[in-house]
Amino acid sequence: MIAIGERINGMYEDVKKAIAEKDPRPVQDLARRQTDAGASFLDINVGTAAADREAAMRWLVETAQETVDTPLSIDSTNFDVVKAGIEAAKNPVLINSTKGEPALLEKFVPLAVENNAQLVALTMDSRGVPADVNTRVEIAATVVTFAQEASLDPSSLYIDPIILPINVAQDQPQRIFEAIQQIRMLSDPAPHIILGLSNVSQSTKERPLLNRTFLVMALAAGLDAAIVDVFDKDLMDAAITAEIILNKSIYSDDFLRAARK
Amino acid sequence: MIAIGERINGMYEDVKKAIAEKDPRPVQDLARRQTDAGASFLDINVGTAAADREAAMRWLVETAQETVDTPLSIDSTNFDVVKAGIEAAKNPVLINSTKGEPALLEKFVPLAVENNAQLVALTMDSRGVPADVNTRVEIAATVVTFAQEASLDPSSLYIDPIILPINVAQDQPQRIFEAIQQIRMLSDPAPHIILGLSNVSQSTKERPLLNRTFLVMALAAGLDAAIVDVFDKDLMDAAITAEIILNKSIYSDDFLRAARK
Repeated sequence: MIAIGERINGMYEDVKKAIAEKDPRPVQDLARRQTDAGASFLDINVGTAAADREAAMRWLVETAQETVDTPLSIDSTNFDVVKAGIEAAKNPVLINSTKGEPALLEKFVPLAVENNAQLVALTMDSRGVPADVNTRVEIAATVVTFAQEASLDPSSLYIDPIILPINVAQDQPQRIFEAIQQIRMLSDPAPHIILGLSNVSQSTKERPLLNRTFLVMALAAGLDAAIVDVFDKDLMDAAITAEIILNKSIYSDDFLRAARK
Repeated sequence: MIAIGERINGMYEDVKKAIAEKDPRPVQDLARRQTDAGASFLDINVGTAAADREAAMRWLVETAQETVDTPLSIDSTNFDVVKAGIEAAKNPVLINSTKGEPALLEKFVPLAVENNAQLVALTMDSRGVPADVNTRVEIAATVVTFAQEASLDPSSLYIDPIILPINVAQDQPQRIFEAIQQIRMLSDPAPHIILGLSNVSQSTKERPLLNRTFLVMALAAGLDAAIVDVFDKDLMDAAITAEIILNKSIYSDDFLRAARK
């Protein structure tokens, strides 16, 4: 699983404070520890408090990459904030995210291609977040078409079918499993499928258990990336074990230790 | 999930000793504790050591049902041992198990019908345990046909597609998920699908983690029963959570406590 570490986000008090005080230590500590915990990307989100979000994004990117070479996921829906992140990054980034809306895809897909970046597109458009499978797949098809026309490599495209909280709509996980399977058939090779995992357990009492149980099922359905709390060891172990069971990584008696590095 | 508690089995030292010494306490303790831990059935297996297996089965059944009313799963492939268990049981039982072989089905299916019992049939026959999906489904189809012709209610039929250890054949879990989906389509209503779960992790170092990760995926594929260690709390919690995610039981903030009773 491609794990995107969610923790460098201005919604968290420590990161918010670090941005306000330009204190690099909390950010660099999170960058190192998430990398050690198995993050393939570090998500960088300035949150909502920063006065100048472009400057905050630039600072977070520069600060994080002073300690680690882990690829960054530039997390904003604002085109200029994303651009600021890309410009500050030493290495190609993951753009996280845009919507599957033509007016936005016309800007974000070329931005990804020009900057050798990968791109996450959510299956939502001006109508909002769909609750059914068909609309999710339809929007994903629009994204795939835009990507193909702009020659964005399928391996650089991530579709996020958007999981809604289970306490609001208990039928949604199964819709997501179906959507994952169908979206994977839209191109060959298939686009990556990604989820912002913790949304499934929003406002519930059993968040870690719901998160990892849902994750295992989604991986079985074809999910291959997720924005997660990589410090949740049980979650990361479940993902490693799921890949062994799905025959995506090779079994050895020490598979867990081997995958943890 | 219909959980069949695997612990009253003469392969375990404590049960073997209890059978030899006719000491009811260990058996009754296991019967009570497994029931409290969520077992829908208590598996009763005399093991291989008992000199008179029919007498041992009779004694185990009588001993277990002195303390609990939990339905029993009479675990033997020997027709006479199964018959002894059925005769000793106060309530209808689950016969666990026969093979999908016509010569055996001709005896075991009528035995189930006559005794208002449920029946587990393994997808193996005189050729052995198949490693592929098609042979598993073929054998299951034979079982379903026998059951239909003998008017065994589909809700009384359990098909076990047999999971092989992952360290021997890493492609097997996915074959099982496919087999589960296909076997469920053999009749309407579908037969139950059951697995002897712990076989997947035979001789591995991460048994609980492999067991519960595989179980969650199998439940997503359509499994609805399993022979398990009901004392494995993480496993039982994973099963409860899987059913919430699959919308098979109704979400409440206290779903875990509610399901644990």
